[in-house]
Parts: sequence; structure tokens; C-alpha cells
Amino acid sequence: MDARVTDRAEAWLRANRERLWEEYKDLVRIPSISAKPDHASDVRRAADWVAARCAKAGLANVRLLEAGGHPSVYADWLGAPGAPTILVYAHFDVQPPEPLELWTTPAFEPTLRHGRLYARGASDDKATLFISLAAIEAWMATSGGLPCNVKVFYEGEEEVGSPTLGGILDRHGELLGADLCLSADGGMMFPARPDVSVGNRGICKLEVALRTAAKDMHSGSFGGAILNPLVAMARVISRLHEADGRVAVPHFYHGVRDTTARDRAELAAGPVDEAAWLAGVGAKGVWGEGARSVLEKLWLRPTLEVNGMWGGYQGAGSKTVLPCEAHAKITCRLVPGQDPRKVQAAVEAYLRAICPEGADLDVRSGGGGAAAYEIAPDHPALAIIEGVLEGVYGQPCFRTRIGGTLPLCAVFKDRLGLDTVPMSFSTGDEDYHAPNEFFREASFDRGLTAWARGYQALASLKA
Amino acid sequence: MDARVTDRAEAWLRANRERLWEEYKDLVRIPSISAKPDHASDVRRAADWVAARCAKAGLANVRLLEAGGHPSVYADWLGAPGAPTILVYAHFDVQPPEPLELWTTPAFEPTLRHGRLYARGASDDKATLFISLAAIEAWMATSGGLPCNVKVFYEGEEEVGSPTLGGILDRHGELLGADLCLSADGGMMFPARPDVSVGNRGICKLEVALRTAAKDMHSGSFGGAILNPLVAMARVISRLHEADGRVAVPHFYHGVRDTTARDRAELAAGPVDEAAWLAGVGAKGVWGEGARSVLEKLWLRPTLEVNGMWGGYQGAGSKTVLPCEAHAKITCRLVPGQDPRKVQAAVEAYLRAICPEGADLDVRSGGGGAAAYEIAPDHPALAIIEGVLEGVYGQPCFRTRIGGTLPLCAVFKDRLGLDTVPMSFSTGDEDYHAPNEFFREASFDRGLTAWARGYQALASLKA
Repeated sequence: MDARVTDRAEAWLRANRERLWEEYKDLVRIPSISAKPDHASDVRRAADWVAARCAKAGLANVRLLEAGGHPSVYADWLGAPGAPTILVYAHFDVQPPEPLELWTTPAFEPTLRHGRLYARGASDDKATLFISLAAIEAWMATSGGLPCNVKVFYEGEEEVGSPTLGGILDRHGELLGADLCLSADGGMMFPARPDVSVGNRGICKLEVALRTAAKDMHSGSFGGAILNPLVAMARVISRLHEADGRVAVPHFYHGVRDTTARDRAELAAGPVDEAAWLAGVGAKGVWGEGARSVLEKLWLRPTLEVNGMWGGYQGAGSKTVLPCEAHAKITCRLVPGQDPRKVQAAVEAYLRAICPEGADLDVRSGGGGAAAYEIAPDHPALAIIEGVLEGVYGQPCFRTRIGGTLPLCAVFKDRLGLDTVPMSFSTGDEDYHAPNEFFREASFDRGLTAWARGYQALASLKA
Repeated sequence: MDARVTDRAEAWLRANRERLWEEYKDLVRIPSISAKPDHASDVRRAADWVAARCAKAGLANVRLLEAGGHPSVYADWLGAPGAPTILVYAHFDVQPPEPLELWTTPAFEPTLRHGRLYARGASDDKATLFISLAAIEAWMATSGGLPCNVKVFYEGEEEVGSPTLGGILDRHGELLGADLCLSADGGMMFPARPDVSVGNRGICKLEVALRTAAKDMHSGSFGGAILNPLVAMARVISRLHEADGRVAVPHFYHGVRDTTARDRAELAAGPVDEAAWLAGVGAKGVWGEGARSVLEKLWLRPTLEVNGMWGGYQGAGSKTVLPCEAHAKITCRLVPGQDPRKVQAAVEAYLRAICPEGADLDVRSGGGGAAAYEIAPDHPALAIIEGVLEGVYGQPCFRTRIGGTLPLCAVFKDRLGLDTVPMSFSTGDEDYHAPNEFFREASFDRGLTAWARGYQALASLKA
């Protein structure tokens, strides 16, 4: 196929742009919150919506894949013998929207303000999921087929760490065989300057409960004579990091490679203005491991974060209670060389070791652990996607890493031998795990063009 | 009046016992939670109920006293010229009932199980409030008057530290003049062994908010490079006590007297089995200041407790958020010699001093500070009430202190020159600031007898 064929697909996308935008908003309206059991039916509703949209785009073999968790959607078009097969990945589940009171407009009513569409999931990951599908439809509508074979695999539990992805691969792994995974999940650093990510961090999760008595007590009748679980929890949490921000858990850094010369070159090419980065979230200063740069901390170093901590009375006014229990939720971001299970075990052992006398500690896995992933820097797909993005943006593309976790990258590499290149049009400032998540209208148009061209450019990959 | 007159009042109480029990339950059903703004109308409903019950008992001058907060109820009978005037105190507001899921039966549906009436407020303080009023009714019904003059002052904001009590005294102080305050608030240590309290601790309250950024962030995109407010809060809270349990705030113990020989004699007379005390709340061990006994910690030492601490995600599953803020609620129990405002200022200064760099700290007063109180050990009212209780229980009465706070004791002493003796029939095991609060049916009967006799015995006080 030649460039004129791609032009037709692009023209079709421009002509149908308004309808596509409205369809994307319809998907965003579904509150597919995978973390909340009472939203399971909404996650399934989103799966059904996506499956129907695959069929409408012209894909065949549309089906839901399940292994006991939220369903995934599979569909394919395999009409290009000899051409490579691209596995397209995205997810249609979203983060919980809380705290709801901080949203300017309701989390699941997509609202356009100043060229930005505000809603939970508008950016992560429903925008590029929809874009990847619309670009397929454009090819099917204008050429009756695609330049390469395509399989789509849209997941419904990415935001909870893909707990049944392994089970789905056990049952349907052969269905997903391909030459490359092109991921619509991930993100770029800037709205008008392209980058391609060469790796992402892994994750492990722990739930911690600490108990010092069988029931809540009156602070006047028991306080000062029985250990306060909030004080005990504070003592535990305060010892998770050294004063300089380094994680204090023994063996935590086992397997982490020292930053290399090539890493330093990539870090130096990352056009990050730390002052602007801090101002974007209203933070007072940089924190963390020693003298390392922000990019090194986010790209190449593992972290331990407390995502939630609570106990006792939180309501209006005061309650003079000595509570009997305290809770914390902890996640660690992992880098290549770390085993999620070993890190989790090390954190758990340390928590038990530092738990004050007089407290009982219960530590459980939060589920959904995932290893980190990085692609070989000379993988040919990297150069192909960099070329597509440079054409769309008219700017040089630089290489980045994702501080977050795309669990499937390591799993696909391990189980299917597949490397993954992301091409997402979300940017890091879009508050995608916070209130007032948004997606830029301009990114929607760039994304449609890039994905339409991407399907053609990747046809040159060795099948 | 002679003992036969008292016998008639006691007989009347026995004859009307079933009706009185049902009326007490009616009062308990009103969810008069003073800490919660949305329950203000319930607190007022309880005030109206109590006022109507005062009139029914035969008291005159029934009125609500207000100074901008929840109302109090005043009523009197002043028909015994030359006899002393007793100011009866109690409160009809209650603690918040949360966590609701831990209640066996609903918090505001009083339920009798095994001789115990379970409900929020069943013990603290609606039982003895009602008893004090029923004993008045018994005297009025059988003798057309009481052996001494009586004023009742039933408060509606004790559980939030009596914030407008000062204002009420400004406006209505002359109305409350008396020779002694007999308090229906307080409590005894054991269900079948009487004690009388000679003092209670004061309180001061702080609300702490710590912020490290303007909005919640994705833990993968920002974690490890911006200070986590939960970690910062944990570091702050972990430094509030020394390793040995002593409060670490500079100047905290200023003015606290060393434990005296008389104190030690009182402590030694306190029949406390520490092992049973621990087992009663399912605690693993004693905690706190050095080698002091539990009783010394609860009666004679000030404390600093964290009543609530929270931030980040607390829902089901996980949310990989780096939150931007953390919160804590702190109260200090104070002993004679400590000034609530000075202690609060010292804690606030220390919190600011230890707040980690990169965090903004907001510290506010939780309102309702109160000084500690103790009565002179040779006050004649102590011996009178000890005599009444020994008669009712058939056991010797010992002296205790209350680890909690009866704010009005110090205020009445300071503003009205009034000493306070408590005669409450709540016991420390009745979970009165926790789920499944209860009151013993047997205590209801002992209380009615003791209060009927108490009004007569106190007639011998010098007016």
C-alpha cells in the first residue's frame, strides 16, 4: 500500500471526527471502576460496549475473554498474509474517582472546557483505546482491510493490577500470538512534543492492619496506659524510609542495576524542567533518594509509597476515643531486576520486625503484583514508531520511561515473547489518578492520525 | 425529715419502676450527638424532652439556657428555706456512634440483653441523668417537696467539651448559685462496689492538617520524588512520645505535681487488677509512662492521644495515589496545675518544629478545652455521699479519680465557687465512647435508691 491509501484513511477520520468524538464520550460515561466490587456490572457494560464497537469497526472473531475477574475484549483482522501481526492493547477500566467533592463537574459526565474533556477515564485509558479502534475502522472503511494483521486485546482490570491476566493467558494465550504489542496505554510527557517509552516500572501491593486491643476505648479511661494503634502505625510508617528518602527495607534494592552511561544519556535528553514540574502539582520541593534527579527517581529507581493510612475518628468535631486498630495501604514501584514477590516478602518481614510490642500486625498482599519491563534500545519497532510520531508532531521524538506500571508488558514478554511499544496520547499532567482527570481534544486528532499511519508503518516489521 | 419519709420515696420508686425504665429508654432513643452538626435538631429534641420531664417531676422555673451552642435545661425547687441548695448536673448529649458496623443492635434502639441495656448514651449520661430526675419526682410525689433545695442543670454539649458553658454562666450564672454540685456524670469503677471520685482530668484538643502538594497525584508519575504527606504525618506522630511513653512535647509536664504520699495511699486503695483490666478490652499489655501503675497513669498523669489519623485511599481494593494531604485529631488529658491553653500552645509549637521540610502544617484548636479539677479531701460532702453509697451497696466506699473530663467541675469552681461530688452509676467497662455501649439494669435500681437518699443526706450540709 502506498501513502495515498493512508491519506484516504486519514481523510475518513477527519470526515467522521464529530461522530467519533461523541462515541468516545459515550465510552467515558460508563463508570467502569475495576477496584470497586459494586461497579463490576459497569466494567462488564464497558466490555460489551467495546466489543460492539470492535464489530462495528469491521473486526472479526469478537469475544470476551474471562478467567474469573473482569472480562477482556478480543477481536482480530487477519487478512494480510505475510505481513506482521500487531497485538493492540488498551484497557477500559478506570481508577476510583474519589474524593468526589474535588471534581468541578461530575466524574462520569464528560465535560469540555477550554479544549479539554474532563472525566474519570477520559485520559486513562479510554481516549487512546478508542483512537486505536477508530483508526482500524478508518482503514476498513476506506480500503476494506489493514496494511498489517491486527489483534486487539482490551483489558478490564488494568487499574487493579491485572489479577487474572495470567489466567486469561493460560486459557487464550495462543489467540494472542503476534510479532509486537502496540500499546494504547502509557502516556507522553508533553502535549506537543512526542516521546516513546522504552520501559515501565513494576508494582507490588500490601494491606497492613495493626491492632492493639479488641475494641475502641474511652481516651480518658484507657489513654496513656494502652498502646495507641495510630501512634504504633505512625512509628511503623516513619521507619519505611531513611531520612534521605532511601527505602529502609532490608534487601529492597536487591537486583536493582546501577544507573548506566546509556541511562544517563537518556535522562539528560529528557526535557524536564523540575521547577515547572513541581509547580504543576503545587508541591513545595523535590523529595526522595539522595541527590538523584527527578527523572532518575521516576524512571530508574524503585519506590515505596503509602497510598492510604487511617484509623480512629475522622468526622466533624471531636471524639475522645482511643481506637483499637489502624490501617495502611502500601505499594512499591519496581524496576528491572526486582522480583515483585521477593520485594513484597521483604517489606512484610520488615513491617513485622519493626512493629511495636503490644500491637498485632496483619499484612496481606494487595494482589496484582507485576514485574518491570524494558525493551531493547535497538528494537526496530522503536524507530518505526518514532518516525510516525515525528511526522505527526513535526518535532524530534525522545525516549522516556513510564514511572507507572503496565503489568502486561512484563507478562507478554514472559508468556508470549512479545515486546511492547506504547503509543498513547495521554500526558502526565492530565490528573489521571486524581480528581478532574482530562484529555486534550488536540491529542484526540493527533492520535487518530498517528494510529492510522502506525498500522501502515508497522507493516514493514519482520513478521 | 426522718428515714420513714425517705422510705416512702423509695417505695414510690419501686412501685413506678417499670414506667421509669420505659421513660429512660425513650430518652436514649434520641440520637443527641453533639459533635455532628446534622444532629443539632436531635440535641434540641433531647433538651425539650428533658425540660418536659423536669416539669412532670414537679420542678418549677423550667427553661432552656442558651449561649449560641446546644441548649441546656434548667429547673428548680426552692421550697426548703434554711436548707442547703444542691445543683444537680448531668448531660443529655452523646458521643458519635461510629463505627456503626460494630454494633450488635442499632445504636439508638435500646436493647436489653442479659440485664444490660445496649445503646449509645444508655450509660453516658442518660442513665444517671434520668435517675436524678426520677428521685426528685419520688420526693415530690410522696412528700410534696424535697429535704433540700434543688436546682437541675442538664447540659447538651458535654461530649464536645462544653464550648458555650462559659457563655451560659455569663448570662445565667446567678441562677446556678448553690452550696454544692452533685453530678450525675462521672462513673464508678465496679458494678457492685461503690467509689466516689475526688477529681477528674482536663482536656485540650487540636486538629492537624498536613499538605505537601495542591492535588492528589499518580504514585507512578510522582511517587518517590515528592514528599508523601502520610509519611510526613507518620514522622510527626511518631515523635509525640518518647520510646518509654513519656510525652515528648517540651514544657508539656510544666506545673504537674509529683505524686504525693496521700496520692500513693489513694492509689494503693484502688482495687485494680491490671490483668483483668487489660483482658476487659483485649489489650496485649500495659503501655505508657515508665514504671508508673495503670491507676497513676489514669488518675494523676497527663496524656497525649491521637484520636484519629487519616489520608489517601481507604476504600476496597487499591488506588495507586500519592495523596496531597493527611489529617490527625489529637487530645491531651490534663491534671491539676496544667493550663489547657498553655499545653495546647506547647503541642502546636512542637508540631510546627518537627514538621518535615516540604510540608505545610495547619494546626487548629479543636475547641472545648477544660482544666482538671480536684476536691479537698476533707470536704464534708465527700463523707456524706460515701455514707449513702455504703448504705446502698453494703460495702465500703473507696476514693477514685476520673481519667476523663467533666469540664464543668473546674468551671463551676472557678466561676461559681462550687465544689462538685459525682454520684454516677456508669461503670468503666460499659464502652461508653465505643460501640455497644450499655448500662446495667441493676445499676438503675441502685441509682434510684442512692439519689433518693442523697437528697436527704445532703440536707445536713452547711447552707
